[in-house]
Amino acid sequence: MRKGRWLVSGLVLGAGAFAVVAYAGKASKDIITPQEARKYFSPITQKVVDNPQNPVTQQKVELGRMLYHDPRLSKSGLISCNTCHNLASGGVDNLPTSIGHKWQMGPVNAPTVYNAAFHIAQFWDGRAKDLEEQAKGPILNPKEMAMPSEEEAVKRIASIPQYRELFAKAFPGEKEPITYDNIAKAIAAFERTLLTPSRFDKFLMGDTKALTAEEKKGLKLFIEKGCASCHNGVALGGTMFQKMGIVKPYNSTSPAKGRYDVTKKPEDMYVFKVPSLRNVERTAPYFHDGQVWSLEEAVRIMADIQLGVQLKDDEVRAIVAFLKSLNGEIPKHALTLPVLPPSTEKTPKPSFD
Amino acid sequence: MRKGRWLVSGLVLGAGAFAVVAYAGKASKDIITPQEARKYFSPITQKVVDNPQNPVTQQKVELGRMLYHDPRLSKSGLISCNTCHNLASGGVDNLPTSIGHKWQMGPVNAPTVYNAAFHIAQFWDGRAKDLEEQAKGPILNPKEMAMPSEEEAVKRIASIPQYRELFAKAFPGEKEPITYDNIAKAIAAFERTLLTPSRFDKFLMGDTKALTAEEKKGLKLFIEKGCASCHNGVALGGTMFQKMGIVKPYNSTSPAKGRYDVTKKPEDMYVFKVPSLRNVERTAPYFHDGQVWSLEEAVRIMADIQLGVQLKDDEVRAIVAFLKSLNGEIPKHALTLPVLPPSTEKTPKPSFD
Repeated sequence: MRKGRWLVSGLVLGAGAFAVVAYAGKASKDIITPQEARKYFSPITQKVVDNPQNPVTQQKVELGRMLYHDPRLSKSGLISCNTCHNLASGGVDNLPTSIGHKWQMGPVNAPTVYNAAFHIAQFWDGRAKDLEEQAKGPILNPKEMAMPSEEEAVKRIASIPQYRELFAKAFPGEKEPITYDNIAKAIAAFERTLLTPSRFDKFLMGDTKALTAEEKKGLKLFIEKGCASCHNGVALGGTMFQKMGIVKPYNSTSPAKGRYDVTKKPEDMYVFKVPSLRNVERTAPYFHDGQVWSLEEAVRIMADIQLGVQLKDDEVRAIVAFLKSLNGEIPKHALTLPVLPPSTEKTPKPSFD
Repeated sequence: MRKGRWLVSGLVLGAGAFAVVAYAGKASKDIITPQEARKYFSPITQKVVDNPQNPVTQQKVELGRMLYHDPRLSKSGLISCNTCHNLASGGVDNLPTSIGHKWQMGPVNAPTVYNAAFHIAQFWDGRAKDLEEQAKGPILNPKEMAMPSEEEAVKRIASIPQYRELFAKAFPGEKEPITYDNIAKAIAAFERTLLTPSRFDKFLMGDTKALTAEEKKGLKLFIEKGCASCHNGVALGGTMFQKMGIVKPYNSTSPAKGRYDVTKKPEDMYVFKVPSLRNVERTAPYFHDGQVWSLEEAVRIMADIQLGVQLKDDEVRAIVAFLKSLNGEIPKHALTLPVLPPSTEKTPKPSFD
C-alpha cells in the first residue's frame, strides 16, 4: 500500500471499504468476479437512504421535490436547488464552478445530488453532516441563492396556502410545520430517494454479463492501480476525505482549502471529500475546482498525483469504459417536475440586487 | 361598442372572435350558458397545435423536450428555455422581466409557453410569426442565452453523439439533420403540445356544472364589461395586437414600444400582443413590463385604462374567480424531465463573460 494513501480525516462507511486485498488473478471465465469487486464496492439495493432523524415519507418526498424545484427559495426568485444540481444533467450544472446570485461564481464545482445520501458528509469540505444540514446552506449563501435570512425563506413559503397544507401533511402533529429546518428536511427526504442503480450493480449482485470485457478490464485496473482505495463503497466515493495531491501537488486556481476551512488543522489543507464516481460521465467538469473537462484526462491526473502511477492509453480507455458503466438509471420520480403552487399577494417579492 | 376598442394591427383568429353580441339576459338556470360563452371563446379540444411547415411527431417532441431543457444552448451553459419559461411555474419565471446572461434584465416579462401555439404571432411585439421562428430568438439574444452564433449552437449540439442520432430520427431523410432551423423546429414541436385544458373548457363544451356560480358571474362580467373583446379565442388572448392604454395612458418603466419596434409605424406605439389569460394565476407578475403582482389589481387597471370602466370590489372578485378557473391541467409529458446526453471532449466549453 502506498504511503500516505490513508491520510483520512473522516469516517469510512460501508462494509469492505478498508478491505484492500491484493487482486489474486483471474477467475475461470471473467477477468474479475463480482465477489472480488464486492470487497471494495456495494451495490445499490435500496430505493431510499433513510435518516432516523428525518424518516423518508411519501408526503415529505413530494413536498421536497416541489421545494427542490422552487426558485422562490432564492432572493431573486430565479435560482432553485435544481439550477446547480440539475436532475436532467447528472444532478450537476456541468459548469467549472456554479453561477449564483448576480452571476457570482462559487469557489467549487457543484457535486451531484444523485446518490449523495450515501456520503459520510456533505459539501466538498464535509462541513454539513448530512443532507438535512446541507440543504440549509445554499439557500442562505450570498453567492448562491442569497436569501437574506431563514425567516425570509419561511415567509415566502408560508405565504402560499398550498404549501401550508403540504407541510401540515408532511410534518403531522407539529404546531408550526413550516420552519427552515422542515424546509431542509423535506428537500433532504426527496434527495434521499435519488439513487441511480446501473449495470455495475447488476454485476456486483452476480450478473457477470452485465459488464463488457472492456469494462471488466477497467474495473480490474481500477482496483489494481489503487483507485478503489478511495473510490469505494456504494457510491464509489463519499466514504472518506483525502488530500488532493498525495504524491504530487495539484495546482488549482480555486481558493478552497478543503477540510482546513472547517477544522483549521494544517494536515487538513487541500483535503476534500472523495467524490462519488456514479454517473461520472454526466458530471463533467471534474475535481473540486472543475478545471478538467475530459474524463480520460481526469483519470490520468488522478493516477499520477494521487497514486504516482502513469497509466497507458489502453488502461485509461478501459478504466473510462468501466466508469461509464456507472451511468445509472435515473428514477422516474426524479424526472417528474412538480406543478408549483402560485404565489399570493402576501408572498414577499423577489429582489435582484 | 367603445370607440377605439378595435384599434387592431394584427390578425384575429378563432371563430366568433369578432362576434361581439350584447349579452341577452340569463338562461333558465345558469347566469351564462356555454353557447353564449362560445361566441367569444373556443375550448381546447386537441392535444397538439400543428404547423404544416413543421408537423409534430413523437420524435421531434421528445428531442424538443431535451433541447428545451438543455442549458448548453446558452453561452454560459446555465440558461435553458425552461429557465425563463419554467414548465413547473406556469411556463414563466414569475419575475418582472427575465434575468439572462450575466444577470442582465430583459425589457419585457416572459410570456408563458403554455398554449402559446394558439397565438397569431410570438413575442409581445409579434416579431416572430410562429414558435419555430420564436425559438431562434432567445438563444442568440445577448441579454438572454447569449450564444454567439447559430453555428456555435449547432456545434455544441452536433458534438454529442446521442443528439446526432435523435436528430436523424426526428428529421429523417435530411442530409444534415442538425441545423439551427431544426433545433428550433424540434423545440417548437414540443411547445405545440403544451396545452392546458381546464374546467372552463368543460363548461364551454356544455358541462354547466364545471364552473361555480361565482365563476360564471365572473365570466358574464368578463364579457359584459368588454374584457372578452380582446381576451378571446382558445387562449383568451393571443388573437390580436392592442394598444396598452386605449382609454387612459399606461405609465411603464419598460423601454419596449411594442409593434412600433417592428413596424416603425406611429400608430403601433405601445401596441402589444394581447396575452393569453390561461393559467393567469400562475403567471404573475402581469403586463408586458411585469410591474403588477396582484391579479385583482391587474383586472382593475385593465378595466380602467383599456375600457374606461371602474369595477366594483365584488365584480373584481368574480372576474378573478373566473380567471382562476383557467388554471389548466399541465400535460404529464410536459412535466417529464429528459435525461440529457453527456457532452464529449469535442463539445465547445461554456463561457461566462
